[in-house]
Amino acid sequence: MSTDSPQAEGDARERLIDLAAQFYDQFDHGDVPTMSIPTRTKSNIVFDDEKGVWVYGDRHSTRSAKTVSGAQKLLKAIYTIDFLAQQLDEDRSSTLRELYYLSESFDEKDAQFNSQDESNQLIEDLEIVSEVRREEFHMRPEESGATIMGPLRIREQTRRGEREIHCQEDVGEGGYQIPNNPDTIEFLDNDADFVLCVETGGMRDRLVENGFDEEYNAIIVHLKGQPARATRRITKRLHDELGLPVTVFTDGDPWSYRIFGSVAYGSIKSAHLSEYLATPEAQYIGIQPEDIVDYDLPTDPLSDSDVNALESELEDPRFTSDYWKEQIELQLDIEKKAEQQSLAARGLDFVTDTYLPERLDEMGVI
Amino acid sequence: MSTDSPQAEGDARERLIDLAAQFYDQFDHGDVPTMSIPTRTKSNIVFDDEKGVWVYGDRHSTRSAKTVSGAQKLLKAIYTIDFLAQQLDEDRSSTLRELYYLSESFDEKDAQFNSQDESNQLIEDLEIVSEVRREEFHMRPEESGATIMGPLRIREQTRRGEREIHCQEDVGEGGYQIPNNPDTIEFLDNDADFVLCVETGGMRDRLVENGFDEEYNAIIVHLKGQPARATRRITKRLHDELGLPVTVFTDGDPWSYRIFGSVAYGSIKSAHLSEYLATPEAQYIGIQPEDIVDYDLPTDPLSDSDVNALESELEDPRFTSDYWKEQIELQLDIEKKAEQQSLAARGLDFVTDTYLPERLDEMGVI
Repeated sequence: MSTDSPQAEGDARERLIDLAAQFYDQFDHGDVPTMSIPTRTKSNIVFDDEKGVWVYGDRHSTRSAKTVSGAQKLLKAIYTIDFLAQQLDEDRSSTLRELYYLSESFDEKDAQFNSQDESNQLIEDLEIVSEVRREEFHMRPEESGATIMGPLRIREQTRRGEREIHCQEDVGEGGYQIPNNPDTIEFLDNDADFVLCVETGGMRDRLVENGFDEEYNAIIVHLKGQPARATRRITKRLHDELGLPVTVFTDGDPWSYRIFGSVAYGSIKSAHLSEYLATPEAQYIGIQPEDIVDYDLPTDPLSDSDVNALESELEDPRFTSDYWKEQIELQLDIEKKAEQQSLAARGLDFVTDTYLPERLDEMGVI
Repeated sequence: MSTDSPQAEGDARERLIDLAAQFYDQFDHGDVPTMSIPTRTKSNIVFDDEKGVWVYGDRHSTRSAKTVSGAQKLLKAIYTIDFLAQQLDEDRSSTLRELYYLSESFDEKDAQFNSQDESNQLIEDLEIVSEVRREEFHMRPEESGATIMGPLRIREQTRRGEREIHCQEDVGEGGYQIPNNPDTIEFLDNDADFVLCVETGGMRDRLVENGFDEEYNAIIVHLKGQPARATRRITKRLHDELGLPVTVFTDGDPWSYRIFGSVAYGSIKSAHLSEYLATPEAQYIGIQPEDIVDYDLPTDPLSDSDVNALESELEDPRFTSDYWKEQIELQLDIEKKAEQQSLAARGLDFVTDTYLPERLDEMGVI
């Protein structure tokens, strides 16, 4: 288990019970039960300059049983706490989707969820109020299929016992599949010099085929587009626990810069977990707009929504550095975007023989 | 390597060269070069009752250099053959997307592809004409992230040497990642009684958590929605080489019946590969429309496009059996669909303790 986990697993159940006990005490004192949580709108999410990640601001809203809809929300919270406490007792787990369906078996009709959005949001509320992460409630998303390949030996605690796996020697070409809760992983030993997070599967496969992980002692983490929580968490742990520099390699378009932003600074949706998921020290490799110019890469024109996204990034506190301002303005100027795999226009080995080594050298990583 | 492979890898390069040689001979005889391929429209795809899969009909169309656009198509084919022959010489591989970008480096501008659709289609044309599969040209798609978990020991031939992996004992909870070309896998030994292909990750995780693969000696193949070629191929090999019954477990809606159809009978897009990818003996477990009624599952109403898809399945030769006619008509009648995970409304263990054992018993699998 990670020592960095904000909350030991054994406590998760107690924290939930404490929440329910608060409602009990409120009733007991003749008060109308309420629950206070940070307001989760964009306007209450602030960039913490010191920590370098997104966090919630000071505004709170109160769920109160004074109204029928407020009372229903608290009722659903209580039934869900009851289910989660039982799940933890039995050392079981379930998916967010299963929770939604499971609510059909609640004896109280008013406690059943009307949509999965509602149950997902309640789980996030409980995470925030209890300060316990969803993974410690044993609530899982679907696996994203993200993988690791590199000179790293891990021990994964599975339900079937411990598994020791070397992420090059004991896996097929597909690599090691990151589990839903990567805090079940212990890092045993490694020969790695840095972590390279890669957006697309095509590029990940290219790096593995070219033996980039072996030649450069790189741990290749496949992000699979916008990375899942588990992928961001393990990336952070590789940085914090092993002291490895983290680099991010994506397509050269505004949506991919957001992928980098979510690895480095966290996302608005999971601002309550930024300190647990984000790696503010992560560095962006490319594709940079200046690479499009320097290497004359095959491109597509920017769409209107690309332009809007770039302009909104200019206002985004995550992209206010001179570096990003320059790159984004250059891109708006050339009106072009390029994919990672467009480097293949210079040959299949260009990315591993030239592009990445040059960039990593410039960035001071190798 | 599979003994079932329609074409040994060493021959792939020769077959391609033969194609190019035909163009040469046509020139040499003073003929305008042409290439004849089966017409790939829906009207030329027929269901082969004997083999139980989709195949192309008898109609052919001819690409001729008589027209400018025809000449360009043949030019692109020749440049692509040259690239593939070189790739095979060097024992390299590349992705479909890389091929599209690589064409930018062709010295002849007219040989460059205008879109990835064009290069993808050319590769399919070459597969059909040469009777060599894309995998043997070493052309890869992105990995789909589909996985296997079950009592099976395999040997995967990777570029870094052989890897022996037991798909329960040597993998984390994420399972064994199916490589792009599963013919690099050799099946060593197994204790399996059947194969269970599962559409969604949430259900796959439920079965693994509940230990279904261990208790029932099941090889769980995660389809990840519409399955990739590699996933369908390994499923077929598990059936043909190990003699294991194959069962398919999906959501209960018309799109999921098509997932079953593509595992069992092949897809229109890859009709030239049906004999290599399809498992006509595969059986459908559910969710069946009658399960929705029998177990009173939580449902969603059918949308207009669901209704249209069901009606078109009633005309689809893959779904003409009495069984499917009855199920589809029942679904049109109740106007409802249900997801796999809706079984959770009866508790998290219902699927593994009751639903699957009952269905597998009915079907004669266990």
